Amino acid sequence: MRAVVISTGDELTTGRTVDTNANYLADQLVGVGVDVVSMLVVGDYPERIAWAWRTALEQADLIICTGGLGPTADDLTTETVARVAGRELVMDTAVADRIRQMFAAIGRIMPENNLKQALFPSGAIIVPNALGTAPGFRLEIATAHGSCHCVVLPGVPREMKAMLAEQVLPWLGELRRGSDEYRSHTFQTFGISESALDELVAGAVDAADGRVAFRAAFPQISLRVTVHAPPRDVEARLTAAAAKLRERLGGYCYGEGNTTMEAAVGELLARSGATIAVAESCTGGLIGHRLTDVPGSSAYVLADVVAYTNAVKQSVLGVPAATLEQHGAVSCEVAEEMARGVRRLVGSTIGLATTGIAGPDGGTPEKPVGTVCVALDSAGATRSRRYQLWGTRDWVKLLTSQIALDWVRRTQLGEDPTESAILKR
Amino acid sequence: MRAVVISTGDELTTGRTVDTNANYLADQLVGVGVDVVSMLVVGDYPERIAWAWRTALEQADLIICTGGLGPTADDLTTETVARVAGRELVMDTAVADRIRQMFAAIGRIMPENNLKQALFPSGAIIVPNALGTAPGFRLEIATAHGSCHCVVLPGVPREMKAMLAEQVLPWLGELRRGSDEYRSHTFQTFGISESALDELVAGAVDAADGRVAFRAAFPQISLRVTVHAPPRDVEARLTAAAAKLRERLGGYCYGEGNTTMEAAVGELLARSGATIAVAESCTGGLIGHRLTDVPGSSAYVLADVVAYTNAVKQSVLGVPAATLEQHGAVSCEVAEEMARGVRRLVGSTIGLATTGIAGPDGGTPEKPVGTVCVALDSAGATRSRRYQLWGTRDWVKLLTSQIALDWVRRTQLGEDPTESAILKR
Repeated sequence: MRAVVISTGDELTTGRTVDTNANYLADQLVGVGVDVVSMLVVGDYPERIAWAWRTALEQADLIICTGGLGPTADDLTTETVARVAGRELVMDTAVADRIRQMFAAIGRIMPENNLKQALFPSGAIIVPNALGTAPGFRLEIATAHGSCHCVVLPGVPREMKAMLAEQVLPWLGELRRGSDEYRSHTFQTFGISESALDELVAGAVDAADGRVAFRAAFPQISLRVTVHAPPRDVEARLTAAAAKLRERLGGYCYGEGNTTMEAAVGELLARSGATIAVAESCTGGLIGHRLTDVPGSSAYVLADVVAYTNAVKQSVLGVPAATLEQHGAVSCEVAEEMARGVRRLVGSTIGLATTGIAGPDGGTPEKPVGTVCVALDSAGATRSRRYQLWGTRDWVKLLTSQIALDWVRRTQLGEDPTESAILKR
Repeated sequence: MRAVVISTGDELTTGRTVDTNANYLADQLVGVGVDVVSMLVVGDYPERIAWAWRTALEQADLIICTGGLGPTADDLTTETVARVAGRELVMDTAVADRIRQMFAAIGRIMPENNLKQALFPSGAIIVPNALGTAPGFRLEIATAHGSCHCVVLPGVPREMKAMLAEQVLPWLGELRRGSDEYRSHTFQTFGISESALDELVAGAVDAADGRVAFRAAFPQISLRVTVHAPPRDVEARLTAAAAKLRERLGGYCYGEGNTTMEAAVGELLARSGATIAVAESCTGGLIGHRLTDVPGSSAYVLADVVAYTNAVKQSVLGVPAATLEQHGAVSCEVAEEMARGVRRLVGSTIGLATTGIAGPDGGTPEKPVGTVCVALDSAGATRSRRYQLWGTRDWVKLLTSQIALDWVRRTQLGEDPTESAILKR
């Protein structure tokens, strides 16, 4: 099956926004065995959108298009697709009612232009959008080479991703039933570079048994193995290939499938009945934010104190003035006091702390930008380590939060985190 | 001038790598007034690369293509372009000598396939590559509509960027001297839906005077006006169009250009010499994280206490047990106590607090998921308001953080935030 991915939006062709939707779609399509022949990006002009569709229809059995489904005058996808396909636009009353209800529920009068989102090309099958007002749709369009399955989704990534996972990929699975299947399994890793990971797993899976691909979405790197086989064999082959990789990856793998580091940490904490409190300086709340992104995290997250000044480190966390004076705020000694202090303050099983220089200013020759210290305090032991990280402010924050969360994971697994988290540029 | 950007590489069409080159090129081209008509991405197959070039030549006066210039078998761009353009491949002896010298300089024998990088279509003008072995080239190709200027650059971002800045953009500036320019201005808004924003600015700028586009990157929505005019008029016309929009947008606009809400808030705090402390419950650290993403935020962020349990709300923030019992943790009364408590704890000018039910669990008929309370305490006044938000856990957190930051902004501007931040789906 040959697919073309179309992305629309002036923000893409003017360079304001990186087109991550096309990348995400390509990744997901390749995962189910679809060959992405090309990706086309055009701005919000009817003739350019029409051009992209005509061009794609020459090449593809499957088109997935994102963007241009909103209520405003520059949302042109639906009417353009209808024109290219030679279909009328038809108002779907159920969708129109839902949009009216959404406005009524918040006590507002609906601007009339919202009803545009209830218009679809005749023959289209609606793809509901649980997270926004604009539904997508599917449509089969006759082409010179037969016919092409077309899917139109909103450009808002979270809406697009949910609709893809819950509705489009299952439909695509049905469509492709009986043909050889592609099935894949993903491992999430941290603490090892992409090239070192490549070396680590080299030869684990024969090319004939599966294709291994890496995807760096820093700070984690995911590794995916894809098996291509008849439906009756595919599951067993995937299990075998995944087992070989799992063995090689060892502790670098913090989760399988689409899990996140914070979810992996949360599962370990919940399972052991442990609770955590965080004291953050350079990460500024990011660790707390990540921990509390996990549903049910109130079972183990007690508190997070962002102590952005020395005064707060002293008054709230009880870091001794002498420690601050002697070693400076960015030191293992202060990180340890912060971890102990926050644990004492709220009575948690674990106290986790970060302090560092996220930049762009504040660096010195002894402690350049990117110097960070992580500490973890739990019954009977306080551990800390200094790291020299790199990159921009947001990157230093993100990487520090990832290291700190990995410390909790390693500690819960009974390992010494100061030894395991070796970072390579 | 109409441009098409072509990116080649299997890593792009399989979703392994996000195509940041096309984004970068589009941004740079728009900056010098070139209209990017489309962006095409294809994998490393000769027929697909040829297809992309033929397709681009139908549309463009300018093609910029990246990728496929290396020494290996899957580097196919140069030979494919030569074939599409009907040119012979010619060895450039100066380039061949340089490649030989680069290998000699590091004491290695040059694999013969490296000489492939010294082959160019006849008539091409070489674009030297100071940072790598593969030079790029320029070529003018005759088309049905006249001729097309073509530029081929390596896919390695740092090489591509240096060659673009030092050689391609200056050449392009010469080529376009005196022709019309595109210039744009962006407004960032919050507290108004995309459709209501569309109505608010409708008719403010005539189609002939500028093109208005919306982009929802929730929770903010940006609006951009683009003016297309001769070089001598473009600045004045943009200023005039932006002024009309600014007047319509009023307080919904929190910043212009690429600013964020947290940067806008930070600028106001820094300017007035105010300091802030945050007490978060449902947002779990996100407000602190966002505030501290701004370089220099240590000048006004004192602390953030994430009080995820009632015990911590009492012991650290001093919320009275009676208030918690009587009104529940998710209430305006508790939010106000949290705001006062954190302000008192660290002595900040402003205390900001959130409490709510982010979901997916924890809702009740009286306080369903999405119920959140925001409070702000400053000298002489404590204000609070309850909101009924919607969506998933991460969305409730994000939207609450945006409302809370907008409260700080509105307060710093002397407005009553409880009246102004009216949210629409």
